[in-house]
Amino acid sequence: MSHAESGEVVADREDPRGDAARPVTIAYIAESAGVSIPTVSKVINGRNGVSPDTRAKVEALISRYGYRRPPPSTRSNMMELVFDQLEHMWGVEIIRGVERVAREQRVGVVLTEFGPQRSAIHYWIDDTLARRPDCVVSVAQLSDEQRDQLRARGIPFVVFDPTVELPDGVPFVGATNWSGGRSATRHLVQLGHRRIAMIAGPDRVLCCRARLDGYRAAMEAAGLPVDTDLIVRTDLNTGSGRAAALELLDRPQRPTAIFASNDLQALGVYQAARERGLRIPADLSVVGFDDLPLAALVDPPLTTVHQPLTEMAVAATELALALGRGEKTPQVGLELATTLAVRSSTAPPPAR
Amino acid sequence: MSHAESGEVVADREDPRGDAARPVTIAYIAESAGVSIPTVSKVINGRNGVSPDTRAKVEALISRYGYRRPPPSTRSNMMELVFDQLEHMWGVEIIRGVERVAREQRVGVVLTEFGPQRSAIHYWIDDTLARRPDCVVSVAQLSDEQRDQLRARGIPFVVFDPTVELPDGVPFVGATNWSGGRSATRHLVQLGHRRIAMIAGPDRVLCCRARLDGYRAAMEAAGLPVDTDLIVRTDLNTGSGRAAALELLDRPQRPTAIFASNDLQALGVYQAARERGLRIPADLSVVGFDDLPLAALVDPPLTTVHQPLTEMAVAATELALALGRGEKTPQVGLELATTLAVRSSTAPPPAR
Repeated sequence: MSHAESGEVVADREDPRGDAARPVTIAYIAESAGVSIPTVSKVINGRNGVSPDTRAKVEALISRYGYRRPPPSTRSNMMELVFDQLEHMWGVEIIRGVERVAREQRVGVVLTEFGPQRSAIHYWIDDTLARRPDCVVSVAQLSDEQRDQLRARGIPFVVFDPTVELPDGVPFVGATNWSGGRSATRHLVQLGHRRIAMIAGPDRVLCCRARLDGYRAAMEAAGLPVDTDLIVRTDLNTGSGRAAALELLDRPQRPTAIFASNDLQALGVYQAARERGLRIPADLSVVGFDDLPLAALVDPPLTTVHQPLTEMAVAATELALALGRGEKTPQVGLELATTLAVRSSTAPPPAR
Repeated sequence: MSHAESGEVVADREDPRGDAARPVTIAYIAESAGVSIPTVSKVINGRNGVSPDTRAKVEALISRYGYRRPPPSTRSNMMELVFDQLEHMWGVEIIRGVERVAREQRVGVVLTEFGPQRSAIHYWIDDTLARRPDCVVSVAQLSDEQRDQLRARGIPFVVFDPTVELPDGVPFVGATNWSGGRSATRHLVQLGHRRIAMIAGPDRVLCCRARLDGYRAAMEAAGLPVDTDLIVRTDLNTGSGRAAALELLDRPQRPTAIFASNDLQALGVYQAARERGLRIPADLSVVGFDDLPLAALVDPPLTTVHQPLTEMAVAATELALALGRGEKTPQVGLELATTLAVRSSTAPPPAR
């Protein structure tokens, strides 16, 4: 930690004195919080000796007024990348994008997986504040409090593919999930399918809601009824996908096509079709979402919505590092376009 | 960098004065190298201002005499994890193991992918020396010179799953590739197969040679001829596996079973079998190696040799961190046992 830093605490947004051009001083924060100036300094510099309540109060004030990071001489050339749990299939795609930018800009990447029960989250924020990274890219869910703590130190963060609604102004990079759901469904409609089922993901996962709404939009645009019997909500794994597909295939009027919310569910549909003696795509068309590396390797190769995970990670990292340099970026939230990868799991419906 | 450190440079192995108990001083290193004491100090502390030649000479001397790290008060609680290129399928398995130990011991993990053309390697060593991590776990190939540079700073490193022969004494964690190759082949022998082909990997990759020798050992133990016509060497990907399998299946007397050097090659065998109208396992048995997450998801689920990547990463990280604390470890090189995961791609050979 540099000595210069503790003296240069300034805040420049939402100035409570109505004068946005004049920075809020550390003294003003201290006065507003009813604490001493050294206490505010301790909070900003991640030192001990401040009660949790006081710390929270000071952080909330700094977060509210905004905090302008001191000059770049204090940069650490380190950034943080955090995951709740690293997923087999897409963890590497994301890390690769981050590493690509890190190489270009010669930044060290500290990787943390919070792990089962998110155990690491308890110390990660303390360790991160002590490491003073230039920025954070978060594939994990951070709490309001953690976001406040980062803001209070002027450590910018970008949320990767947010799964829950974020407050306005929180920088993020996602994918066009709604459009992806729409183009997957439209592809099936154009092949001649009418009874198109959807295996939806959990409602609490934002991207799943968007994919489902994209499906609905395409069905409605084609003048097809959105039959709630054709929508099954379940978890985003192969076993759940299989169970949901069996449920759909065992209905009296079974669907001729199933759009799954991700590739793992789609593999479950493959298993269910095999169990019911249905050939893909002759008897049943299947579309996935994500385009994991395995999508092209399975039999038949899976038609799926390509999510540009590596490019999203590149964009998130570039944005985070730019914010860390104090640059004004025109956009703090963006969605990268998905594309439909048409392979061999989709075909016109069987003739009646 | 702590000031204490630059004054406490000692070396305690292979003392050239024949007195192993007495540490080699920084002055002795300086005298041997024909340079000044501050120059040696600069090298040890990763500072600039030393010519490449001098730096190499000092590093080689320190590496030769050994270097005892100063007391643990100077520990950074950071470690480095390096990959040449992150692989889709097993990168996450490895990272997860490292992260598990990092959480337990509250150590930050700096992850670096050298990337295409290994571009990051040029600055990684400098940045790593400047970061002064407690240890390094390397999934990448480090050169002799880089190993010398790490040794000269007392930064211990462990090689994960070495692909080339290492000098004695270089710590590593691998898998029992030879035993794995043997048990895969024995499984096929016990099912009644006699014409068992092997798709071998590149000869320069150590684990591939061990897997092939395991195959040979099991064939010889069963009194079966090791027919060189039944061994095809190729790269470790699906396309190469497919081409090699087509070559084998188009022979006049085609094999009834194929053991592939990894799961990706085995998926290529699946493709080739499909193209030739052969059913797995009724007409052709297939065994892979690695047990990637997709092995259980493909159709039919693949019988394969399970490589405990996560456990290997746990062992490598624990070993590296123990070395970083200056602990004497009984073993600096170890191989963790593979196990055969029998699924549905193997069966007795078709009746003649």
